[in-house]
Amino acid sequence: MRTEDARAFAAALLAKNGVPAAEAAIVVDALLEADMKGLGSHGLMRLPVYIKRVKAGLLKAAAELRVVRDEAATAVLDANFSLGQVAGERGMAIAIEKAAGYGIGACLVVNSGHFGMASRYGLQAAKKNMVGLVFANTTPLMPPTGGSAKMLGNNPLAIVAPTKTDPIVVDMALSAVAMGKIMVAKNKGEKIPLDWATDKTGVPTDDPAKAIDGGLLLPMAGPKGYSLAVALEILTGVLAGSFAWQIPSLYNMDKKQSIAHFFVVIDVARFVDLEAYLENVEALRAGLKASGKQPGVQEIFMPGEIELNKGKAALASGEITLPAAVVKEMNELAAAAGIPPLE
Amino acid sequence: MRTEDARAFAAALLAKNGVPAAEAAIVVDALLEADMKGLGSHGLMRLPVYIKRVKAGLLKAAAELRVVRDEAATAVLDANFSLGQVAGERGMAIAIEKAAGYGIGACLVVNSGHFGMASRYGLQAAKKNMVGLVFANTTPLMPPTGGSAKMLGNNPLAIVAPTKTDPIVVDMALSAVAMGKIMVAKNKGEKIPLDWATDKTGVPTDDPAKAIDGGLLLPMAGPKGYSLAVALEILTGVLAGSFAWQIPSLYNMDKKQSIAHFFVVIDVARFVDLEAYLENVEALRAGLKASGKQPGVQEIFMPGEIELNKGKAALASGEITLPAAVVKEMNELAAAAGIPPLE
Repeated sequence: MRTEDARAFAAALLAKNGVPAAEAAIVVDALLEADMKGLGSHGLMRLPVYIKRVKAGLLKAAAELRVVRDEAATAVLDANFSLGQVAGERGMAIAIEKAAGYGIGACLVVNSGHFGMASRYGLQAAKKNMVGLVFANTTPLMPPTGGSAKMLGNNPLAIVAPTKTDPIVVDMALSAVAMGKIMVAKNKGEKIPLDWATDKTGVPTDDPAKAIDGGLLLPMAGPKGYSLAVALEILTGVLAGSFAWQIPSLYNMDKKQSIAHFFVVIDVARFVDLEAYLENVEALRAGLKASGKQPGVQEIFMPGEIELNKGKAALASGEITLPAAVVKEMNELAAAAGIPPLE
Repeated sequence: MRTEDARAFAAALLAKNGVPAAEAAIVVDALLEADMKGLGSHGLMRLPVYIKRVKAGLLKAAAELRVVRDEAATAVLDANFSLGQVAGERGMAIAIEKAAGYGIGACLVVNSGHFGMASRYGLQAAKKNMVGLVFANTTPLMPPTGGSAKMLGNNPLAIVAPTKTDPIVVDMALSAVAMGKIMVAKNKGEKIPLDWATDKTGVPTDDPAKAIDGGLLLPMAGPKGYSLAVALEILTGVLAGSFAWQIPSLYNMDKKQSIAHFFVVIDVARFVDLEAYLENVEALRAGLKASGKQPGVQEIFMPGEIELNKGKAALASGEITLPAAVVKEMNELAAAAGIPPLE
């Protein structure tokens, strides 16, 4: 389908559910950006649940954002259960403003929602020739090392650096893999490595079916990923007073989510002349891209390059492919809202 | 041997080689802290090469540190090839001072040396009730994903958070494992996982002997570790204008190392009342420690807890065990300097 048709449809659907046009545009752009980059799990597949949460009173239709602490280079933004993408964009804008003033800035966003692809906020900073660091906590999915209970989120971590051309985009969740990859293994009838997931009793398993049946994701890189997840939980949940293990699933329709984001922005020009930085970062890219390849490897990719290329191709084509189940679910909500379905 | 005997001996050895007493005390304390915590690769085993580099004119005996940029919440410290531990401590002190003033602060240290255990600098911040983030680049050890050439360091990353009692200490290198672990596998006659290392041609290998014979370490967690290593290289080597692949080995006696450190300090009290933070972080610890365990697991450990416990035990005993080869090498330098050997 045409991307702009999906955009107009999704924006209308949010508008019919009370989301102001400017805020709907942010949310839809964020979701479409993920779909275009091949990251469907952060894409329009999330729109139906956002709308259901708005209808259930678990998310504010119109954002109510309030800066509750504003000091020198730092601020705290209370998102008051507004849509995560709107709160995230505002929080990062505040951190950028602080960094413009002081060289480095930070904004903690509390009581926020699911904000999608973390690197989107880092890209906001990169557009200003600053490095953006994005941390968030999530609903619990992982145990600590040696543990059998869901205690920590697979906390997203993004670091985005500006360049003259394509930014360098580091964006990851701290689990070894996403559950989607385990589902793929199951569908292929393959075993999974023992460090990907546990069964529902918390014991590491190589059987993807057991992992999917109430199992836990394991942290990437074992104790290193666990440690990083704790560090991010401290910079989000501990500062905000809302731990991962208190955050209900996005699909739990009884409770509000109180997610925290932590944005740090670094103005590179305070450390080195901007032109020198831009030259150096291109030299880093050129060096890595030109470096020796393993047999069978055609190209060395920079972090995020594959997704940026997919995004460019999708933009050039003007077309997007959405899973039929996602379209169906959105069309059911469209029928309820009295707007024409997406074909 | 008595830890204090090792301390006095090592300090005397540095002093005889021209290192001022206060600076020698910092270096020796850093090395002993690592040995006491069971992290011998950051311990006194590095003292001989530091002294050899001082003798060869590759490291300054007396630190020549100069703040070359000092703006609002940021600074750049030129370490001018001083000992890394002295430069690191000063750089972190500057970042702490900036954070005290502005809520968040950063210091880039350029032209620095091997600084040992990254978490030591984070602990400086935690003592002030601030979170300390420590990034550095290193001599190249790892290829990019799909690559066969040493292009990136296994860049150390530490995040240390204050608590009322033991700090929470995240500290890792970004390689899947250290070469030492591969040596252990070789000695046991075991194969290694294919995602630990390559042979000398850059092809992933499960043979530890091939990895040790000129092979490359692979990033932890595959493309995620590669991406993080690039992000850290941007915050260190790109800002400093000295990439990992330009940094010679610590054991190369022909060239100076120009390592960069990047310190970020976050004053938690700007985001939440300090008492609330301290309560929350204890609640996080208590929750994780009390959470369900996998069969056979006795205890859930916080990040860094095992090393902190070893350090306390070593402190209580007053004794330390150093490898015979390390003592022998130090004693050869002691003989040359005309000081009594360490027994």
